[in-house]
Amino acid sequence: MQATKDNQDVIHRIDPESSEEFSNRFDALVCLLSEGTDQEVLRQIEGFHHSDLADAFGLLSGSLRKRLLDLVKIELDPDLLFELEDHLRKEVTDSLSPKEVAEVITEMDSDEAVQVLEDMDELEREEILSEVPDEEREDIQVGLAYPEDSAGRRMQTDFVSVGLNWTVGQTIDFLRDEENLPDEFLDVFVVDENTKASGVISLSRILRSPRPTLMREICDETQVIVPASMVQEELALLFEKYDLTTAGVVDADGRLIGMITVDDVMEVAREEFEEDILRLGGVGEETVDDGVLQSSAKRFTWLFVNLGTAILASMVIGMFDATLEEMVALAVLMPIVASMGGNAGTQTLTITVRALATKELTPYNTLRTFRKELVVGFLNGCLFAVLAGLITVFWFYHLNDATMLGLIIAGAMIINLVVAGLAGVALPIFLEKMKIDPAIASGVFVTTITDVVGFFAFLSLASILLL
Amino acid sequence: MQATKDNQDVIHRIDPESSEEFSNRFDALVCLLSEGTDQEVLRQIEGFHHSDLADAFGLLSGSLRKRLLDLVKIELDPDLLFELEDHLRKEVTDSLSPKEVAEVITEMDSDEAVQVLEDMDELEREEILSEVPDEEREDIQVGLAYPEDSAGRRMQTDFVSVGLNWTVGQTIDFLRDEENLPDEFLDVFVVDENTKASGVISLSRILRSPRPTLMREICDETQVIVPASMVQEELALLFEKYDLTTAGVVDADGRLIGMITVDDVMEVAREEFEEDILRLGGVGEETVDDGVLQSSAKRFTWLFVNLGTAILASMVIGMFDATLEEMVALAVLMPIVASMGGNAGTQTLTITVRALATKELTPYNTLRTFRKELVVGFLNGCLFAVLAGLITVFWFYHLNDATMLGLIIAGAMIINLVVAGLAGVALPIFLEKMKIDPAIASGVFVTTITDVVGFFAFLSLASILLL
Repeated sequence: MQATKDNQDVIHRIDPESSEEFSNRFDALVCLLSEGTDQEVLRQIEGFHHSDLADAFGLLSGSLRKRLLDLVKIELDPDLLFELEDHLRKEVTDSLSPKEVAEVITEMDSDEAVQVLEDMDELEREEILSEVPDEEREDIQVGLAYPEDSAGRRMQTDFVSVGLNWTVGQTIDFLRDEENLPDEFLDVFVVDENTKASGVISLSRILRSPRPTLMREICDETQVIVPASMVQEELALLFEKYDLTTAGVVDADGRLIGMITVDDVMEVAREEFEEDILRLGGVGEETVDDGVLQSSAKRFTWLFVNLGTAILASMVIGMFDATLEEMVALAVLMPIVASMGGNAGTQTLTITVRALATKELTPYNTLRTFRKELVVGFLNGCLFAVLAGLITVFWFYHLNDATMLGLIIAGAMIINLVVAGLAGVALPIFLEKMKIDPAIASGVFVTTITDVVGFFAFLSLASILLL
Repeated sequence: MQATKDNQDVIHRIDPESSEEFSNRFDALVCLLSEGTDQEVLRQIEGFHHSDLADAFGLLSGSLRKRLLDLVKIELDPDLLFELEDHLRKEVTDSLSPKEVAEVITEMDSDEAVQVLEDMDELEREEILSEVPDEEREDIQVGLAYPEDSAGRRMQTDFVSVGLNWTVGQTIDFLRDEENLPDEFLDVFVVDENTKASGVISLSRILRSPRPTLMREICDETQVIVPASMVQEELALLFEKYDLTTAGVVDADGRLIGMITVDDVMEVAREEFEEDILRLGGVGEETVDDGVLQSSAKRFTWLFVNLGTAILASMVIGMFDATLEEMVALAVLMPIVASMGGNAGTQTLTITVRALATKELTPYNTLRTFRKELVVGFLNGCLFAVLAGLITVFWFYHLNDATMLGLIIAGAMIINLVVAGLAGVALPIFLEKMKIDPAIASGVFVTTITDVVGFFAFLSLASILLL
C-alpha cells in the first residue's frame, strides 16, 4: 500500500503475492471494530480497495458487520455498494432511505445501477427511481425494460460514437474536448447518419493513424453488434471467440443504444460457469454465504427428486426378491454394477454438457459423438467386466456358482457401461432440444438410468442363469 | 457479411442472431470441399472470420479436413493457427517444415507464439526457434522460461511504457509517432527511471486530460502488477475482482517485462473453469474431439478408483450377509440410504469446491461453514427420515417388522446425511491443505464415505434392532 499525497486519488497498489497483507489489514479492522473509535475504523478502511472492503463485509458477521455498515452508509461509495454480494447489498439498501439509495445509484454507470435495482421488488424500485434525476432514470429504465440476463440489462447506455466520415483528427479533438463522455472507454463506435452502427475502432488505432484518415477506412475487422435481447451466456462465448473488448448493443431497429465491455463480460462468464457447476452438482443458486434454512431449502428439491429415483431403483431390486433370497451374495455385489454405471454416466454427461455449453457439440458431430460413446462404453465395459468378474470369482470361491457369478457381473457391467455412455450423451442433448438447461437435470436422471439398468441387468441375468 | 472494397481489410460483421449464417456458409464449404475447385474453396473461406474457420476445421473430418488443411497451409494465417484446437494445431504444424512454422509464429504476438510452441516437444521447438529472427526469438524464450500456466507464459512482451514525469502531451505525441509499438493496446504503463512499474493509465484517461498534466498525477487508482511466476488461476480472479483491462508483469527484481490483457485472461478463466467442471465430473482433460482410445484411457483411471471404492462398500454389505439372509427387504431398501447420502455429499462438495476456488471460503469462515453443514445435514436428514420411513412402512406393511424397518431407514438417513454434509466440507478443505486440487479427487471419495456409512448404518441398525 502506497499513498501519494500530492494526488487526490488514493493509489492502491495490489501486490497479490502477499495475500497476507489483506489478512493483516482485515485482522486490524476486526480489532478496531470491536474496540476502536469510529475515527479509527474509518481511517483503517480508507486503505481498502472497494473490492477488498466488499470482501471484508462478506467475512464479518453479527455486530461487527452492523457497525461497519453503519459507518460506511453515511457516505456510501457507489463502487462498494456495487461490489457487495447480493444479500449484503440488500442489507445495505434496506437500511437506507429510497432517497439515499437514489443518490448512490445516480453516481453509478447505468448498467451498474440496473444490476442494483433488478434484485429489488417492484415497489421499492419505483420509490427509488422516482428520486433519480430524469436523465439517469431514463437510461436505467431502458436497461430494466429488457429481460433479465440479456445484453440490454448488461449494457452501459453511455458510449462514444463518431460519424463514418469523420477524420481521425476530428475524432481526437472531439474525444479531448467533449465534456459529456463516459469516464473510461476502450473503443469508439462509428455510426452512419441514422445512428446505425457501422463499426468499432480501438483508441490505440485512432491514436496511431494519421489525422486526415477517415473513420470508415480504419473500422475494425471484427465488429460485433449484438441485439439487446441476446442472452448473456451467448455474449460471453462471443467475446471469448472473437477476442473482443467492446460490443455494440442495438435495439430491434438496429439503432445503437449501448455498449458492453469485456470486464462486465468476465463477470457474466463467471456467473454462468458457477451456475453450470452448481447445477451439475445438484444445487441451485446457493452460495457459501447462504443461511442454514436457505441452504436446506435449496438442496431439498433435488434430494427429493433423488428419493423418488432411488425408490424406483429399489423397486427394481424388489422385483427380484425371490432371487436375492436364494443367494445373498447377489445383494452384496449388486451395488458395484450400479456404482460403476453411475460414474461412467456422469463422466460422459459432464463432457456432453460442457460441449453443448461451448457449442462444440453441434448437429454436425452428434452422430459421431454417439458412435464414440458407444465404443468407449463397450471398451471400458469389457475391461471392467474382466476385472470385476475375476474379483468376484476369487471373492466367492467358496460358492459353487462362483464362476457363474463372475460371468453375471461381467455381463451386467458391459450392458450398464454402454447404456451409461449412451444416456450420458442422449439426455443432455434431449434436454437442450426441449430448451431445458442440460446442466440442471441430467445428473439425477443419468444415475437413475444407470441404477435401474445396473440392478435390472445384474439381477435378471442372475435369475436366468442361476435359478 | 458486408465487405467494403475501398478498404484493404475484409470487414466481418458478426451478427450472432443468425447462427444459421455460419451453418449455411459451413454447408457451402463442405460442398465445395467435396466437389469444388481450389479457387472456389479459397474464395469461400475468405468470407470466414479466422475464429469461424478454426471452428469449421473442428467440425470437418477425414479427407475434407485434409483438403482444407492443404489449401490454407500454403499461406497460413497466424490468427487461424492460433485459434485452432490444440490437436488440430498439431496436425497443421506437423504438416509444415520448421522454417514454415517459424515464419508464421514470427508474425504472432509473443504470448501467442509461446502458446503454440509450449505444446511441442523440446526438439521440435528448438528446430523452429532456430529459424525465428533473433529479436522475436528472445521474446519467446523469455516466456518459455517461466513455468506452464504462469503469468510469464501468458504475458505479451510488447507493451507501451512512458516515464512518471512525462506530460500528457509528450505521451500522446510519443504514441502517435513512435513506430515500434504493438498493434493494439488498451493501457499505457508508467515506469520510474529504473523501469520499475509505478502505474497504469488507460488511453481514454490520457486522451481526456489536459496536455500539461504529468503522468504521475493521473495514474490509475488500481494498479495491478503481478509477478511472472503467478499461476494463471489467480490472474483470472484478480482481473475479475478489480475489473482490470491490463496488468503489468514484473520479474523477480520488480522490472516490468510484459503485460497481460483482459481478453487473454478471459481465455484463461474459461480453461480453468472447464478443468474444474471436468475434474468434478471425474474426467481429466478430455474434450469432445478426443478419439475413442484417448477417451477410454482418460476415463479408465477414475472408473478404476471407483471400482475399488465400490468393492469397499460391497465388503461392508458382505459383513451383514447373515442379516440380509434373514430379511431380503433390507437388500431392497439399502441403496436408498446410500444414494441419498451420495447426492447430499455431492451438493455440499460442489459448493465447498467452488467457494475454495473463488476464495470465498477462508480460515475466517471455515468453522461457521462446518457448523452450518452439520445443521443443514441434520435438518434435511430429519425430513427425509420421515419421508423414507413412512414410505417404507406402507411399502412393507405385509411384514411384521414394517414399523421397525421404517425406524431403521429413518435413523440411517439422519446419520448418513449428517456425515455427507461434514465429509462434503472436510474432504475438499483437507485436499486443498495437502495442495491437491479439491475438484479432482473429492467426488469419488465423498460418495465412498456416504456409501460405506449408508450401508453400515442401515444394516447394523437392522442387525441390532431386528435380530
